[in-house]
Amino acid sequence: MNPSWLKQPVIACNEAAAQAAADRQAQLTKPPGSLGELERLAIALAGMQGVATPRVDRVWISIFAGDHGVVAEGVSAFPQAVTGQMILNFAAGGAAISVLARELGATLEVVNLGTVNDPGECPGVRRAFIAAQTANICDAPAMSEAQLADALAAGAHSVQLAGQGGAQLFIGGEMGIGNTAVATALACALLGEPPEALTGAGTGLDAAGIARKTAIVARALQRHGGVSDPLEMLRCLGGFEVAALAGAYIAAAQAGMPVLIDGFISTAAALAATRIHPGVRAWLLFAHRSHERGHARLLEALQARPLLDLGLRLGEGSGAATAVPLLRLACALHAGMATFAEAGVADA
Amino acid sequence: MNPSWLKQPVIACNEAAAQAAADRQAQLTKPPGSLGELERLAIALAGMQGVATPRVDRVWISIFAGDHGVVAEGVSAFPQAVTGQMILNFAAGGAAISVLARELGATLEVVNLGTVNDPGECPGVRRAFIAAQTANICDAPAMSEAQLADALAAGAHSVQLAGQGGAQLFIGGEMGIGNTAVATALACALLGEPPEALTGAGTGLDAAGIARKTAIVARALQRHGGVSDPLEMLRCLGGFEVAALAGAYIAAAQAGMPVLIDGFISTAAALAATRIHPGVRAWLLFAHRSHERGHARLLEALQARPLLDLGLRLGEGSGAATAVPLLRLACALHAGMATFAEAGVADA
Repeated sequence: MNPSWLKQPVIACNEAAAQAAADRQAQLTKPPGSLGELERLAIALAGMQGVATPRVDRVWISIFAGDHGVVAEGVSAFPQAVTGQMILNFAAGGAAISVLARELGATLEVVNLGTVNDPGECPGVRRAFIAAQTANICDAPAMSEAQLADALAAGAHSVQLAGQGGAQLFIGGEMGIGNTAVATALACALLGEPPEALTGAGTGLDAAGIARKTAIVARALQRHGGVSDPLEMLRCLGGFEVAALAGAYIAAAQAGMPVLIDGFISTAAALAATRIHPGVRAWLLFAHRSHERGHARLLEALQARPLLDLGLRLGEGSGAATAVPLLRLACALHAGMATFAEAGVADA
Repeated sequence: MNPSWLKQPVIACNEAAAQAAADRQAQLTKPPGSLGELERLAIALAGMQGVATPRVDRVWISIFAGDHGVVAEGVSAFPQAVTGQMILNFAAGGAAISVLARELGATLEVVNLGTVNDPGECPGVRRAFIAAQTANICDAPAMSEAQLADALAAGAHSVQLAGQGGAQLFIGGEMGIGNTAVATALACALLGEPPEALTGAGTGLDAAGIARKTAIVARALQRHGGVSDPLEMLRCLGGFEVAALAGAYIAAAQAGMPVLIDGFISTAAALAATRIHPGVRAWLLFAHRSHERGHARLLEALQARPLLDLGLRLGEGSGAATAVPLLRLACALHAGMATFAEAGVADA
């Protein structure tokens, strides 16, 4: 199984636009380089958008929700019913990402890929229901080939909707009780790291809980030890929302849509996406360094230098949304500052 | 000389309001602590503003500009005329802080405390002219007692204007060719550190330039070696804009106005302010870790954990302005998220 669209080429970044942006940065009334990452952001976005002065006014946020069979092993501090409850909270506007989307004027799409405590059809939720939950990764592949294809396609469909909505930036978020466990297993498989190196507290496990989770991740890795293909790793050790994120990132790169990556789970999905299709990497910006233990190693593997380091560990795309103002300010500075010549200021 | 207002008490933070905010954070629909610094920000601002749900809608930014006699020694990559030129650029809207203030809807005040290349009376610039420049700190105290008092008072006056304008947050910025040199000398004196430990590239010196600047800072420290009082250190080794910042921070704490500290020079002024009046510290939030070499040591001395680390080294209050959206999002999340009870979501 390998959905044919996954291997379609990605759009090439516009090197001339990036160079023009870099040239402009050098003329603005400031010591060269003194706006640090804000300069690099403006230049990167110029290359992605193919324009001299990029913008991120229209931001699209898709939250993918799904449940996980591995929760039966006891990997989370929260009951599994919370996944479905939070879908309603996202749609009702009470979750962190709901508040952030409102503040940013961003479009928030909530996608139900499969939940045990199923809220059914409800306003503000796109239903792309695959199954009540994945299989327990300690015993079986998380998804069938058809389920994986559906999850990847659901992510790609969100990017298509974002493009139709004129989005200049795509953010994927996730909700799924137990999904730090599957993301950890996936990350271990992709990176060849042992479970002890990457397993963390998730939503709030204590030391005993982390030890139990580490053993569960180890069992899952043992069960699927022979797998070497990244897409097959995603099928065996991922989840509906993790696969949807990976599918979205690949589709975004194919559509030439910049992506802002959130935290641990999103970064695991991003690593899977780049292993499936290396061209995806050029379209990814990284929002923040999560408090979750394994995130640093994932970021390192992607050679990513995130913008924020605020001890966030919520998921839902919340860290990415929090970083959006930095992108907007970078664009505003790039477009709005006077040059030395315009302002009559002496250069160094 | 010790202007009597400097020792007036600061306003006490409202511990009950901070506790109420912490209690609310624990009920919001997220794992406890999972919004990291954004939770701590909301709680700190609640304590400062004395309300359950703080706001930072109205932001006041004062840019203090002044010239430095030590520039004669050759401490900067830019000519001294740039200070006056940049005052006009601030007022005309072309500088980084001008763009940021516009994007944030913040009030930007530009204060000319004394410039060699004096733009004179001009629209959008408050004139609080003390002298064309300070004395060369290698040879003499930077300021007379009367000049120091005027600079401190100019900063306090800006805070008064901010209060009259209904500001919920005060940001001080600075412009002054050569001011990383004086801030380095002041920091060395306050911290008891040698010049080699703190002297950096400023606006863009190379290694030879840094070596020369280090020797100049060493000469200034030797010239004023007997000084132990922090206010006297500020007079001998500071500058008009550095003293104005210190005066503003003290006045803000006395007025109960939260302050967001910018980079290296602002932090040196903040350290001086807290040495003059330790109660000031409770009113300071720290925006970013500057690329300038000595900043880390200053932050450590203030036990400050800044919000951003983006390699910024521009000054002008630009790093503080860049962090304002984080404060606003922290407040929005705190006020706008549903509690577990409101959303019908199961707690851990």
